[in-house]
Amino acid sequence: MTGILLDRIGRLWTGVERGVVTDAAVAIVDGAIAWIGDAGADPAADSVACDDRVDCGGGLVTPGLIDAHTHPVYGGSRLAEIAARTAGRPYGASDAETGIGATVTATRATDAAQLRTAVRRRLRGWTAGGATTVETKTGYHLTRDGELGAVALLDELRGGDGLPDLHVTFLAAHAVPPDHTGTPDEHIDASISWLGAAAQQGADACDVFCDEGYFTVAQARRVLSAGQRAGLTTHIHADELAHTGGAQLAAEVGAASADHLLHVTDDDARAMADAGVVATLCPGTALAVGELPDVAALQRHGVTIALGSDHNPGMVGTTDMSLVVCLGVAAFGLSVTEALAAATHGGARALRLDDRGGITEGARADLVWWDAEHEGAFAWAWGLPPRAVWRSGDRIV
Amino acid sequence: MTGILLDRIGRLWTGVERGVVTDAAVAIVDGAIAWIGDAGADPAADSVACDDRVDCGGGLVTPGLIDAHTHPVYGGSRLAEIAARTAGRPYGASDAETGIGATVTATRATDAAQLRTAVRRRLRGWTAGGATTVETKTGYHLTRDGELGAVALLDELRGGDGLPDLHVTFLAAHAVPPDHTGTPDEHIDASISWLGAAAQQGADACDVFCDEGYFTVAQARRVLSAGQRAGLTTHIHADELAHTGGAQLAAEVGAASADHLLHVTDDDARAMADAGVVATLCPGTALAVGELPDVAALQRHGVTIALGSDHNPGMVGTTDMSLVVCLGVAAFGLSVTEALAAATHGGARALRLDDRGGITEGARADLVWWDAEHEGAFAWAWGLPPRAVWRSGDRIV
Repeated sequence: MTGILLDRIGRLWTGVERGVVTDAAVAIVDGAIAWIGDAGADPAADSVACDDRVDCGGGLVTPGLIDAHTHPVYGGSRLAEIAARTAGRPYGASDAETGIGATVTATRATDAAQLRTAVRRRLRGWTAGGATTVETKTGYHLTRDGELGAVALLDELRGGDGLPDLHVTFLAAHAVPPDHTGTPDEHIDASISWLGAAAQQGADACDVFCDEGYFTVAQARRVLSAGQRAGLTTHIHADELAHTGGAQLAAEVGAASADHLLHVTDDDARAMADAGVVATLCPGTALAVGELPDVAALQRHGVTIALGSDHNPGMVGTTDMSLVVCLGVAAFGLSVTEALAAATHGGARALRLDDRGGITEGARADLVWWDAEHEGAFAWAWGLPPRAVWRSGDRIV
Repeated sequence: MTGILLDRIGRLWTGVERGVVTDAAVAIVDGAIAWIGDAGADPAADSVACDDRVDCGGGLVTPGLIDAHTHPVYGGSRLAEIAARTAGRPYGASDAETGIGATVTATRATDAAQLRTAVRRRLRGWTAGGATTVETKTGYHLTRDGELGAVALLDELRGGDGLPDLHVTFLAAHAVPPDHTGTPDEHIDASISWLGAAAQQGADACDVFCDEGYFTVAQARRVLSAGQRAGLTTHIHADELAHTGGAQLAAEVGAASADHLLHVTDDDARAMADAGVVATLCPGTALAVGELPDVAALQRHGVTIALGSDHNPGMVGTTDMSLVVCLGVAAFGLSVTEALAAATHGGARALRLDDRGGITEGARADLVWWDAEHEGAFAWAWGLPPRAVWRSGDRIV
């Protein structure tokens, strides 16, 4: 395969370990980073052959961004509900007209081809914002066939033309279905019974919405344990709307990530750090809910932080991870370096993808050349356009 | 002049008085709104002739957005300083390497043609985000010729091809120049002596940075009073970094707006309301500084609120007013309706432009057709692309 040389990189933001390398060049061979050297140097001297050369003109290059929490498989619109919520209506009222239930009804009513087109269009939005890996959840069908169909759709689209790589998460335990007549435990039983098929269909992970008004810690424990038995990576919506114990459960079962954490405590942070659970924080949602997580506690205990857009129809519509990095700075007080680390290394840890999240020799060649000369632009521009994006060495922007 | 009919508008967000009109149509004649009626109705029946028709396909139309606070005339880059600030360096250290002083040095060193190109490109960014009127300040030259040249540049660009209308604000009292050898009062004296020429050159307004480390209330009072004598509208950077009395001064002299107000008090809000001073709030800056204004106090006393991006080289880079509307919701807790009102009616009041800020018959035809079906999209999308923008009846997007 032909090698590609990214030359004249003004600032190469490599990741948490090596930091910024100035006046650098990177060679990509066979979808991986084959060589890192000085701008203007010839990688052939190190036996790395490149036929193509991209002049990055002194610009900024970072790893491809990783969005560690999204819900892109849905139909319908909840914009009127969103406007009403900003005027005082509380979130979480899960009647048929609003919340997850409303989207479930709309999604089930959406024709499969139309849904595929909408999801594909949304996924292109992530590419346009510089994300090369996106965690994508099901959870707006809440029937066996619908949830497995959503897994199949995501599995089919991952890595497609112009699309990011996907980490597919089965979230049948998102909420009690609006037309469910049994107990919540019966829906949990059903969700668990679908996990094996989900894994076969291509799911990488499972998740459960553990919170006030959604599922209990006991119910979430059953889902995560069953997911682990099915060989899936585990994530949990934890302590978002109230402090119900989701972060502690994540530590207990050794989940890959606990997400949202708007009510996380110092004890929770310690337990997560001890168990190696990543904190996936979603600044857009935190701002919309009006509740900020205790980021200082997470940092004090050394919890790895990832960032997610939490793209979903009822709360956050952006697919621009460069904006989410900016929000991580603006809302959470992260430094630019911390926010970029969360959107690269942290995301890779949250999704347990050890081949990406930093620019090192041998890593997957997920790279973004930004329209900026310095990483400070993330905190200034509020959405930074990529000049080029490579996903596993393929140029997709 | 040929009339243009905007037909099949799903939701016409007219402004604070009439609210949303569903299934509407609007006719534009001679740059003004000539008729508002039902979708599908023929304005000719009301003697309004339209040769062109735009099918808005059930979408959302609002007044053109108004950005009431920006600093677009600068050279250089402060991205490294911004990154350092997020890692703990405080804002306001005005040595030669950082802050306004650094930008003054860089701006003076920028060739006039290059500066013109950069400013023009930035102004196009506002159009792309749905703004049709932008307040634009000078203040990065801090010499007589430089400041008057900046006024002339903005006056030349206003209303140009693809550009928004501009409200040009003379801000020679932005800071003490980095190479100034006299007292701060001497720079204030000089700034005041340039006001008449600024007005002749095309300035609509003047402004002064009244704050800790910048100018005192006594100095600001002299600038604003002189500005009023020169026939200029007056704005003031007030109580942003500390509570030094800028809002009270705005009320005392009857300034059009007091801007930032991160340390505004209940008493200040009452005084502003009594004096009819608009509060121009900049959510991007508030988030970057980590200090939120007491919006509830402003609302309680009935102060009119405007929104500004505060685009400037050291803090906020966005030119997307639809994002600023979203930030007004997310950071300040405004409802979508309140944030939109601030970005339309409020901006018009802050700039004392009585011909715009709402969709009523006879108003200036500044209109945006958005890629959305409901105004709730402003709080969801974090940046909403316009499908079309009309500035005084001319389609500029």
